[in-house]
Amino acid sequence: MAKKPATSRSKRLGVWLFGAYGGLATTVVVGARAIAKGLSEPRGLTTETDVAKGISWRPLDSLVFGGHEIRESDYPTAAAEIHSKTGSLPPELLRKLKRDLATQSKNVVRGVLPNAGATIEGLAGAVKRRKDTLRRQIAQIQRDIKAFQKKHRLDRVVCVNLTSTEPTLRLSAAHKTLAAFERALDKDNQKAVRPSALYAYAAGSLGLPFIHFTPSNSALTPAIEELFAANNAPFMGCDGKTGETLVKSALAPMFKYRDLRVLSWQGYNILGDRDGHVLADSENKKSKVDSKDALLQSILGYPLHTHVGIDYVPSLHDLKTAWDFVHFEGFLGFKMALQFIWQGCDAILAAPLILDLVRFADLAASRGESGSMPHLACFFKQPLGVKEQDLHGQWQLLSDYLDRVRAG
Amino acid sequence: MAKKPATSRSKRLGVWLFGAYGGLATTVVVGARAIAKGLSEPRGLTTETDVAKGISWRPLDSLVFGGHEIRESDYPTAAAEIHSKTGSLPPELLRKLKRDLATQSKNVVRGVLPNAGATIEGLAGAVKRRKDTLRRQIAQIQRDIKAFQKKHRLDRVVCVNLTSTEPTLRLSAAHKTLAAFERALDKDNQKAVRPSALYAYAAGSLGLPFIHFTPSNSALTPAIEELFAANNAPFMGCDGKTGETLVKSALAPMFKYRDLRVLSWQGYNILGDRDGHVLADSENKKSKVDSKDALLQSILGYPLHTHVGIDYVPSLHDLKTAWDFVHFEGFLGFKMALQFIWQGCDAILAAPLILDLVRFADLAASRGESGSMPHLACFFKQPLGVKEQDLHGQWQLLSDYLDRVRAG
Amino acid sequence: MAKKPATSRSKRLGVWLFGAYGGLATTVVVGARAIAKGLSEPRGLTTETDVAKGISWRPLDSLVFGGHEIRESDYPTAAAEIHSKTGSLPPELLRKLKRDLATQSKNVVRGVLPNAGATIEGLAGAVKRRKDTLRRQIAQIQRDIKAFQKKHRLDRVVCVNLTSTEPTLRLSAAHKTLAAFERALDKDNQKAVRPSALYAYAAGSLGLPFIHFTPSNSALTPAIEELFAANNAPFMGCDGKTGETLVKSALAPMFKYRDLRVLSWQGYNILGDRDGHVLADSENKKSKVDSKDALLQSILGYPLHTHVGIDYVPSLHDLKTAWDFVHFEGFLGFKMALQFIWQGCDAILAAPLILDLVRFADLAASRGESGSMPHLACFFKQPLGVKEQDLHGQWQLLSDYLDRVRAG
Amino acid sequence: MAKKPATSRSKRLGVWLFGAYGGLATTVVVGARAIAKGLSEPRGLTTETDVAKGISWRPLDSLVFGGHEIRESDYPTAAAEIHSKTGSLPPELLRKLKRDLATQSKNVVRGVLPNAGATIEGLAGAVKRRKDTLRRQIAQIQRDIKAFQKKHRLDRVVCVNLTSTEPTLRLSAAHKTLAAFERALDKDNQKAVRPSALYAYAAGSLGLPFIHFTPSNSALTPAIEELFAANNAPFMGCDGKTGETLVKSALAPMFKYRDLRVLSWQGYNILGDRDGHVLADSENKKSKVDSKDALLQSILGYPLHTHVGIDYVPSLHDLKTAWDFVHFEGFLGFKMALQFIWQGCDAILAAPLILDLVRFADLAASRGESGSMPHLACFFKQPLGVKEQDLHGQWQLLSDYLDRVRAG
Repeated sequence: MAKKPATSRSKRLGVWLFGAYGGLATTVVVGARAIAKGLSEPRGLTTETDVAKGISWRPLDSLVFGGHEIRESDYPTAAAEIHSKTGSLPPELLRKLKRDLATQSKNVVRGVLPNAGATIEGLAGAVKRRKDTLRRQIAQIQRDIKAFQKKHRLDRVVCVNLTSTEPTLRLSAAHKTLAAFERALDKDNQKAVRPSALYAYAAGSLGLPFIHFTPSNSALTPAIEELFAANNAPFMGCDGKTGETLVKSALAPMFKYRDLRVLSWQGYNILGDRDGHVLADSENKKSKVDSKDALLQSILGYPLHTHVGIDYVPSLHDLKTAWDFVHFEGFLGFKMALQFIWQGCDAILAAPLILDLVRFADLAASRGESGSMPHLACFFKQPLGVKEQDLHGQWQLLSDYLDRVRAG
Repeated sequence: MAKKPATSRSKRLGVWLFGAYGGLATTVVVGARAIAKGLSEPRGLTTETDVAKGISWRPLDSLVFGGHEIRESDYPTAAAEIHSKTGSLPPELLRKLKRDLATQSKNVVRGVLPNAGATIEGLAGAVKRRKDTLRRQIAQIQRDIKAFQKKHRLDRVVCVNLTSTEPTLRLSAAHKTLAAFERALDKDNQKAVRPSALYAYAAGSLGLPFIHFTPSNSALTPAIEELFAANNAPFMGCDGKTGETLVKSALAPMFKYRDLRVLSWQGYNILGDRDGHVLADSENKKSKVDSKDALLQSILGYPLHTHVGIDYVPSLHDLKTAWDFVHFEGFLGFKMALQFIWQGCDAILAAPLILDLVRFADLAASRGESGSMPHLACFFKQPLGVKEQDLHGQWQLLSDYLDRVRAG
Repeated sequence: MAKKPATSRSKRLGVWLFGAYGGLATTVVVGARAIAKGLSEPRGLTTETDVAKGISWRPLDSLVFGGHEIRESDYPTAAAEIHSKTGSLPPELLRKLKRDLATQSKNVVRGVLPNAGATIEGLAGAVKRRKDTLRRQIAQIQRDIKAFQKKHRLDRVVCVNLTSTEPTLRLSAAHKTLAAFERALDKDNQKAVRPSALYAYAAGSLGLPFIHFTPSNSALTPAIEELFAANNAPFMGCDGKTGETLVKSALAPMFKYRDLRVLSWQGYNILGDRDGHVLADSENKKSKVDSKDALLQSILGYPLHTHVGIDYVPSLHDLKTAWDFVHFEGFLGFKMALQFIWQGCDAILAAPLILDLVRFADLAASRGESGSMPHLACFFKQPLGVKEQDLHGQWQLLSDYLDRVRAG
Repeated sequence: MAKKPATSRSKRLGVWLFGAYGGLATTVVVGARAIAKGLSEPRGLTTETDVAKGISWRPLDSLVFGGHEIRESDYPTAAAEIHSKTGSLPPELLRKLKRDLATQSKNVVRGVLPNAGATIEGLAGAVKRRKDTLRRQIAQIQRDIKAFQKKHRLDRVVCVNLTSTEPTLRLSAAHKTLAAFERALDKDNQKAVRPSALYAYAAGSLGLPFIHFTPSNSALTPAIEELFAANNAPFMGCDGKTGETLVKSALAPMFKYRDLRVLSWQGYNILGDRDGHVLADSENKKSKVDSKDALLQSILGYPLHTHVGIDYVPSLHDLKTAWDFVHFEGFLGFKMALQFIWQGCDAILAAPLILDLVRFADLAASRGESGSMPHLACFFKQPLGVKEQDLHGQWQLLSDYLDRVRAG
């Protein structure tokens, strides 16, 4: 079973989750506590594999979780709901973690929700949100995080955005420079801002590492990247690479190596969780689809017919199923096909990545690194500032970085 | 369309195919001539892609084909039969290549066939073969190749073994050293030898490059490797990596990167060509299955349940279909699955590899390299002398080699 | 090989195809001639199986083809194009049918094309069509068919609508009674009419049997059904059941028998032929999707989540691929799944149905039957006037009808 | 939720399960009790659907379970083990049924185990079995069943064979007539008998209805069928039709209707439960494979290439996955393919069939019917005395029978 290295109480790391009671965040918290207490193997974590040996990663039992959430809930409730739908988070485990989860729930506070689009607003349920200025909302977020840090005497807090996909924001001059964005905030220009931008801005101005796990484009604009650089904080995004896209980025190089010309790569995803429901709203769907469609041409080096469809199938809940059909041409123009079917639980696939990314962000901060973290490209569908989309090339980036860290 | 660089007639390369009228060899010859004459794009050839730029590869129109074959046929006949079964090698193309294919057929001579097993012997049809001593058989093979080389004034001949999979040979002391093997030949110990061993021995003793594209274990034994080293000739094998195994070696690293623990990797192949018929014979099947099963544990680094089944489905002919079911465990021990279905035409997938391998062998010989060619690992299921089974790691070996060649 | 019973020249049956050079019509004509000449087995024809024994079906070599088409072409050209894209209609066969196909091409005349929607109009290519009144267009269609019948001394003509799917027509009072529809034609109310309505009206007023093989809803409205009844002519439609839907209607009863509660039945079709291109136009797509989605609730008897997606993948041409995911719940509420992948060539699947339907329509007319033909329900996605969607129940209708015919 | 009609205590039906703690039997008992107590819907039961309306079926809460088992266990233990492996039988439910399951466990006694083959004997674990004569074993079985009936004052007991597949028994003259079989028993000819024969013989001689749910061929030989007839008891078998074969028998008629000529139907099953382990033993596998392979030629009416492979994949436990590849030829000889993937939990699929079959056997006995029950063909892979393999034809048999019952 899991090893539980002793951790001095004075060296605890805060993890602030935006979207704290979502399926993914709940799975992160349950899993981290289960592993910390030796109730589960640390499966699915890159930082627990050979490539990551020899680095003093933050122990999982030193993580303290908190966050913002727009819905009323708590971890035991959210976890039981997940179990009833997908079968993950078994009741035996939840029973053993009952007190733990109640404790972590105390650190979750109400989030903000301006301009998130009708579908996401519909999720909020009973919680009424008062309209406030952007500046006041940011200040509130910062107060919440600082209170969390102080209360738990945390030596650092890493912020992670796990909120639902937002409608794409049309970027303008206001997002190009920090000065312009500050002016937009001062004028309370609500059209230029979505919740993710507030989260990122709040983190950046506090100098805290920030992981942007969703495809929402409002968060890591040039303006906000400038803020992180100015405050000497690392960040990375966007859109966690967990299922069909992960497989794509592993497989596509094979076609390139062998000069098997891909004619069409058609992907079709069905899923039924809250995220699927949000994506069924066509405005939000566009953000997601654009994000998935980008990588094939980059890896293969030529234009091809490619499409990613997403449909909402409620009975699946979080058990996403993807069917990909790859039509390709070989020697003498002969056409052949590869199909794959991916059946995974999204939260189960993504949760360990969050723990990995928190550890990497913590490591970068401890080394005084700031700005984007290109060595984390393999974890994202749209790795910021990285052209490499080939999973194996991205892996090399990670491996090389860890070699440099070890070399010290 | 294809580029046709001019080639001086005095710089022609011979390609000697053991199994010259098989589906693969026929596809190689038809394809090479089609590309040479600008009737088809050079699709499927690694040596025509970016990684291979800047190397003076032997032009395809300078290749002259010959070989041994146990069945009576010629290229137009063999090609028409392939078309009627799989739809590859279109009649329009064959019509344009009619004269070419008749010419190449003149270089094919009768092969040897001792100890090949009952199923393979059954394929030989009307051609009766006289029993001869091993030494006389080898001498005959060598005379045939030398006559071919002389007749066409070839500056080099690369030998390629494309014969059907043989039953596994139990290796003994006779296969450990060249001296011991020579003694077995002298004693005409037919039990220690299969046809592939004669082909490899004949090539090695003539100092000709040798590509072993089948899984038969009799060819590149330590004894015969010693012969190639002694005669300063390069070789590589064994068992071309074309379909399901290629996909496996591209995908398995993904599971390693993400610490998704593979519980079972079950593969099931159905095919209906001559090769499938030979594999239906359980003795020959074992050679093939062992070869396919090897790589997963090597890539993943832990033991797992893995199985590769092969069944003969005549209606498919050479259109191999494989279904792979990968059962894996993620965060919190949750089980998930990836399936893939590969539908490819075996000869179409393998033929361009033969042309690539011939060019690589020619390049190595021209550079005075001898012995095994580890940089060609990505083309083989069991790359001789190479532990790396990860397709991307193997690709790096190839890429690094070409960098060294270009660096001069 | 195929049997070729002698047919007296005076008993020839005309087959008038609306959409005469489309992939389906071309496959019908090539196939009928190939079978008639003994060049191919009569495969795929229900009327050639045991259920249809003992009925004097019109011999295939007595069929004479003609039709309307909006594009300039001829059968040899259309057939060669099909071969190059899907590999069906082999060149060897086309060569043998060269003269035949040229002859059949002489019977194809220019069609009408009002209100067909922008995508279909784009297909027409160079052929400019003059705007004409509805009444004049109908008269022209009738003149063309009568000339065809007279020229070939045909004892009957069966009309078949194979044109591309039209945008859904909003039905109004004008479609409820024949009188009202006649008034709309008199007023030249182009908004109330699409090409398929003109074809059906022309056939009905000539008292000719009519097969409506497309989902277009303008053809067999109550008004036009009244016309067929008045003129004592049989008809049936609509939308031929060939691939995914055929499988659905065969499989869904199994879930009912065993009380396996279907939670979701998600279908996803990709195809790349002209029909796929037309469907990519969302207006036309709606007609098709509505048609496919109807049957599950009818068979299963309860509401369920069901969806049929269609996307255009040009490289597939007519080789349609469908992936269906059926999520169902069994004993103790346990969830399980069935997936199927259908890989068929649409024209190859549909063509024999056209020949069957022509024979059935001819049989009905010869027996003096008029109005809809419910015993043909098994051939259609939306069988007119038939509630039974279960393929096996539909088969019983066919079998019972043939028993009645045989009983005389 | 489930309806719980009141049942008079004096009208209770016994269900005697041979193989009482196997995965299937355990699921039957848990499910029956869950439905009886209104904790679960009666999903998956044909006797609860429209076809079975108007028949006074034995209420599920009137069933009392007992049986023989060779392994030491009890229902709470067996059920918890199933949950940990496949996720069926949720702990919440088991907690509510705790007392119920303990009660049912009291009725399970030690079974017999002569000649079951090495693999099955290996399952028995610690329970040592004393060698006894066949006659004494039979007498013991009968005493156990009679004691069960008396203790619970049951007005009838239905016997159900759910033991693991036995090696095929070579049938001889001893199995042809009851007299000959009696002589074999008298002579204690252990070679002529397997455990299933003893179970069937014991039931038959007590005049109890018998359901043979496994493919083992020793149970319902002509000799034993004679016994049932003599004692006026109904029986049916063999080998429950639950997964891949069920789908096959629903789909194959579609190919017949449309004259789509099936060239190859290749099935490949992977499973990892006790049954899979037993099947991995090649002697037992043969029984199973023969049973599955029989139906296609029967439905289609012509010989075709067909194969059913079964492999043991431990990580799947009872979650059987089957991949079927159907290669077929249509119009003009064009080849196409249908694949399906079945992912089901075997015990969940089979358990409601047991409850259905028990009710049908009880109904037949109450109506004085004896001998085989051909109307139950749809529940079996090898329906005794029924040639119809088409699921829809079999369904008609069932529906017609129920009409006769209702007609009274």
